[in-house]
Amino acid sequence: MRPSERSCDALRRVSLTRHYTRHAEGSVLVEFGDTKVICTASVEENVPPFLKGKGQGWVTAEYGMLPRSTGSRMRREAASGKQSGRTQEIQRLIGRSLRAVVDLQKLGERQIVVDCDVIQADGGTRTASITGAFVALSDAIAGLIAAGKLAESPIREAVAAVSVGIYEGQPVLDLDYPEDSACETDMNVVMTASGRFVEVQGTAEGVPFSREELNALLALAEKGVRELIGLQSEALSK
Amino acid sequence: MRPSERSCDALRRVSLTRHYTRHAEGSVLVEFGDTKVICTASVEENVPPFLKGKGQGWVTAEYGMLPRSTGSRMRREAASGKQSGRTQEIQRLIGRSLRAVVDLQKLGERQIVVDCDVIQADGGTRTASITGAFVALSDAIAGLIAAGKLAESPIREAVAAVSVGIYEGQPVLDLDYPEDSACETDMNVVMTASGRFVEVQGTAEGVPFSREELNALLALAEKGVRELIGLQSEALSK
Amino acid sequence: MRPSERSCDALRRVSLTRHYTRHAEGSVLVEFGDTKVICTASVEENVPPFLKGKGQGWVTAEYGMLPRSTGSRMRREAASGKQSGRTQEIQRLIGRSLRAVVDLQKLGERQIVVDCDVIQADGGTRTASITGAFVALSDAIAGLIAAGKLAESPIREAVAAVSVGIYEGQPVLDLDYPEDSACETDMNVVMTASGRFVEVQGTAEGVPFSREELNALLALAEKGVRELIGLQSEALSK
Amino acid sequence: MRPSERSCDALRRVSLTRHYTRHAEGSVLVEFGDTKVICTASVEENVPPFLKGKGQGWVTAEYGMLPRSTGSRMRREAASGKQSGRTQEIQRLIGRSLRAVVDLQKLGERQIVVDCDVIQADGGTRTASITGAFVALSDAIAGLIAAGKLAESPIREAVAAVSVGIYEGQPVLDLDYPEDSACETDMNVVMTASGRFVEVQGTAEGVPFSREELNALLALAEKGVRELIGLQSEALSK
Amino acid sequence: MRPSERSCDALRRVSLTRHYTRHAEGSVLVEFGDTKVICTASVEENVPPFLKGKGQGWVTAEYGMLPRSTGSRMRREAASGKQSGRTQEIQRLIGRSLRAVVDLQKLGERQIVVDCDVIQADGGTRTASITGAFVALSDAIAGLIAAGKLAESPIREAVAAVSVGIYEGQPVLDLDYPEDSACETDMNVVMTASGRFVEVQGTAEGVPFSREELNALLALAEKGVRELIGLQSEALSK
Amino acid sequence: MRPSERSCDALRRVSLTRHYTRHAEGSVLVEFGDTKVICTASVEENVPPFLKGKGQGWVTAEYGMLPRSTGSRMRREAASGKQSGRTQEIQRLIGRSLRAVVDLQKLGERQIVVDCDVIQADGGTRTASITGAFVALSDAIAGLIAAGKLAESPIREAVAAVSVGIYEGQPVLDLDYPEDSACETDMNVVMTASGRFVEVQGTAEGVPFSREELNALLALAEKGVRELIGLQSEALSK
Repeated sequence: MRPSERSCDALRRVSLTRHYTRHAEGSVLVEFGDTKVICTASVEENVPPFLKGKGQGWVTAEYGMLPRSTGSRMRREAASGKQSGRTQEIQRLIGRSLRAVVDLQKLGERQIVVDCDVIQADGGTRTASITGAFVALSDAIAGLIAAGKLAESPIREAVAAVSVGIYEGQPVLDLDYPEDSACETDMNVVMTASGRFVEVQGTAEGVPFSREELNALLALAEKGVRELIGLQSEALSK
Repeated sequence: MRPSERSCDALRRVSLTRHYTRHAEGSVLVEFGDTKVICTASVEENVPPFLKGKGQGWVTAEYGMLPRSTGSRMRREAASGKQSGRTQEIQRLIGRSLRAVVDLQKLGERQIVVDCDVIQADGGTRTASITGAFVALSDAIAGLIAAGKLAESPIREAVAAVSVGIYEGQPVLDLDYPEDSACETDMNVVMTASGRFVEVQGTAEGVPFSREELNALLALAEKGVRELIGLQSEALSK
Repeated sequence: MRPSERSCDALRRVSLTRHYTRHAEGSVLVEFGDTKVICTASVEENVPPFLKGKGQGWVTAEYGMLPRSTGSRMRREAASGKQSGRTQEIQRLIGRSLRAVVDLQKLGERQIVVDCDVIQADGGTRTASITGAFVALSDAIAGLIAAGKLAESPIREAVAAVSVGIYEGQPVLDLDYPEDSACETDMNVVMTASGRFVEVQGTAEGVPFSREELNALLALAEKGVRELIGLQSEALSK
Repeated sequence: MRPSERSCDALRRVSLTRHYTRHAEGSVLVEFGDTKVICTASVEENVPPFLKGKGQGWVTAEYGMLPRSTGSRMRREAASGKQSGRTQEIQRLIGRSLRAVVDLQKLGERQIVVDCDVIQADGGTRTASITGAFVALSDAIAGLIAAGKLAESPIREAVAAVSVGIYEGQPVLDLDYPEDSACETDMNVVMTASGRFVEVQGTAEGVPFSREELNALLALAEKGVRELIGLQSEALSK
Repeated sequence: MRPSERSCDALRRVSLTRHYTRHAEGSVLVEFGDTKVICTASVEENVPPFLKGKGQGWVTAEYGMLPRSTGSRMRREAASGKQSGRTQEIQRLIGRSLRAVVDLQKLGERQIVVDCDVIQADGGTRTASITGAFVALSDAIAGLIAAGKLAESPIREAVAAVSVGIYEGQPVLDLDYPEDSACETDMNVVMTASGRFVEVQGTAEGVPFSREELNALLALAEKGVRELIGLQSEALSK
Repeated sequence: MRPSERSCDALRRVSLTRHYTRHAEGSVLVEFGDTKVICTASVEENVPPFLKGKGQGWVTAEYGMLPRSTGSRMRREAASGKQSGRTQEIQRLIGRSLRAVVDLQKLGERQIVVDCDVIQADGGTRTASITGAFVALSDAIAGLIAAGKLAESPIREAVAAVSVGIYEGQPVLDLDYPEDSACETDMNVVMTASGRFVEVQGTAEGVPFSREELNALLALAEKGVRELIGLQSEALSK
């Protein structure tokens, strides 16, 4: 029995609120149960130095957590003067996931920066971030098309992410914090609408996992991402 | 005529939403029109080193802005590796304002850290932060009393803050961003329920201001803070 | 009775020594009693990036304290790797105060950097800095005129600053360290020769202050700044 | 055809030189072809603060590259003042991989720090590091047993790592730099002697990968790690 | 002919003003011609962590330059966030030079920190710093003896420093800035009253120097330091 | 009797292995007994900003130690976020030593960066670094000549370095760690093939040293450097 009483293959209640804040070209509040992340996409009409003059664009991401988004207050990274290794790992993952579904040539020499800021954490902040970030990115790109700056969308297909893990010996979908902190194996899976993998990151927290467990987790993740991509599509069609 | 069509002595629509996020001992979303700040109060059962063993508590504050809370994206302070001078000024101001109404002896050897994170900015983020922070602090202290950790409240009286300024030659209350960026003089006033000043910070952005203008601004501020303290009281009584 | 036996409305002995060091375009040792600050003005024939090509100049300030300018040794900011929030607040205040009396268009595309370094502290280092910095700035600008680089002075009028506060229930002018560390309310006032305010920063250290107290403090400050501007004028005429 | 003319399922020549430097409790030069990494294990008779008094030990890792270990010189991280996100990701991965096979209770209140420093890079530095680090760790622990500080080994089983990827449409084992920089999908797999997974990290560099490709890559990785664990065992038995 | 018209073996006018600032236990303004350095010695009743409980004291130094102590303004190290390599080299040299003449056992478990801050630079700031620092240190130690905290002085003998160099083919004593920036070889020599060397640091700026030149420079330096030690002694006897 | 049983004027076994790693234009493993340093020379076709357009080149150096190159593990400088004063001193010394024998005009507008990374330390890492760095630099320059980018060598003559010191009252050559940590006086001497000095850095660790001792040390150093330059020449002729 999961602490939340969900069945093993059930996502938490997921919600994607577009136009959540006013200034950004794309702004989405994504909720995976009690995990809440504000994802904003900002369009900048320039590219990082390593891409100057190469005729292509860039998509990147930054990630942060409000100090009291968690059960006990974390030190503010701006005050401690650096981003933790965990923060850097997550923002690199979000950026790679988004770039995997964008044709950077078609984007033209501009950059889209997606900021994912966790205002309340209950496990799965990185997968919620990727899922919400794709919607914010889609809105920013729709704006570029509407403004005549892009002729067609550089987005190839949708991308979303979910966590799976082995909790009390059982493979489960979309871990919340009580599950995440107690699970033996934790895997984050980033997939596209066509069912292909962008990232698979499985980690044994305690006992290493077998090939059979890996297969079971991948099957659960496929189901979860398929549902999330349906919810993204629904949100974007409103 | 003000850009927002408000009268010169009118606040923006103000809202104070308590219990906005789940983990913090006090958590308030404060809105001054389109300015939105999440204020959380975290109780920690220890004090900073300089107060160890002195039998008193401490109240401090940290301030941040989401990178795209503003019209164009700002660099993330955690990524640039330091807090700007402006950020430090504001968080020091919030901390001093709260300490001015708290009896630190009565608080006991514990610390309350108030985080004010701006998720959408439209002028007046520091005054909204102080106004919301007081409500979050009140909730955190009520929790300590309910848990039997404090016998009586160390809060002496309410505190709130508002900005006033001279916009197109006219003293106006509670400046929004279009006014703030165009005004000649900008003043932030922090006052208590008993009508006394905690902080008065007036700055001539362009032409220095006269004693008469200063008096007119103070009168407007007194009116504004009185209304804000009424709204705090109403929110806390729900 | 004040610790220094001064009357409530008396400044400390103030001295302004021009040409104090050899290299800078303006170099002034300012003394407010035992508070001693070296103010140097450096002319640079370029502007910060945000002003490139805008046809205007810039005036900015930096502030520091020698580690043993104070009663007990402070950590050297260069060694700790960052400037404190207090340092940043003060240097921003000095910069704004000077810019308030300079026509930046008339200055042309050049920058004047004023460094205020406290070699001995006894309260009021920021007001002494502003008062001395104006004299150093005036000398640097006189040099530009003498060199034919400026046709007329971009300085509109003089500016000076003084602290006032409520010490043992009494409003007093120009607080020294024993008063500053014990006072209930502390206010720094920056004013121009024409009697207008550039900055008013009042802070209740203990009990918040009333409107009457604020008025009394402003009156004292007006008297003090008037005298300081007289001393600046005298020093510059030598 | 692979650039190195290896068959698809062939490792590069692997060598593990124990006692490579003199001071460390374990010191191994690991070579995967032209990739050369010095792995040293240092025993410290204390634990990080978060483990003080908990009766268990800790194993952690740090990773670095000499500035000219690569084709063009990289900036020295000590000079730039921070470790890159990539460096932090890798050293966290090495640490987790080693901890997965160590019984931290049995290790006692001491810490083993493994430093992996790349002196020449040709792809696969993180997998070579993990493979070499396990040997260095084993030597350090053997030393503790020989010195009578540990009664039995806290190591549960061997761990090693290898990269696999899809290069020109073909799954291949143990990518060198020319393959790594051109491959579509790159996966690092950390496995134990008993054939269980500690980490699986697959990333689509270009086109996302299918479930079939993932399965093929995992099969190759299993073969590679089995061989590497054989080589570790052989090196440790000398 | 030297730019200053001094003879080859002449020091600049040297002055040592004790009790220069009010707070420090020792405070000296040292002038070597136009080079002016404030040296303060601060007594702290504790030692750095690596000496805790070892029954001995410590003497250390920090060095800084005011941004406009030089011909063109240098970046403030506190603002750039780190001390340059040159600054660190100099402060390490000053500390070593002072420790060479102090019996750290006799000093007891306390630390004396000497701050050398250059307010005007004209070559030779490090040698002036060492020469002035010794006088400030002597005053601080005299204060400890006067206060009954030390029974006898831990100072073994005096120490002073001077620069020598080869300028236009000629060995010269006590280089000023025009000589320093044009000389071929520059040597800083730290010596004691008994004529022994504490530090000899010779650097060829252009053409390497011969053994004969080295000997000539050492002879000049011995003469200079002997005179400086006479001036220290005279200043301390006042 | 020296701990190593060497005679007072004997170097340790010195070896210079060229082409030690694959990527750098010059790559040398230098060994002075158990001290082992990898020296790589990297050619970059640009110069630092302060030399842009001046028609000359630059040679600079960086220095580092692997964390466990020493008897007990040192903190990794990349992790602590800054290079120590000692590191900066050493890398500045290496750079100056190399520049002293290179005609920077003849080098053309390019930079050679020499990295000296200590993989095992047993005293004398800075002198070994300089000695090995010269060989790496020579190889890099030979490569530029072979590639037709330079017509003739900008190297004027060879340079090498050795330490000397007074150990148990006796002047000795090429100190190893047991001698270095116990010696009274330590001197590093950098000399050229023509027998001229580039740097002489003598430091009294305990008792200051006399002129006679200085002379004896210089004589020993001359002998040592002459032998090292022979070994460099031999290595480069292979």
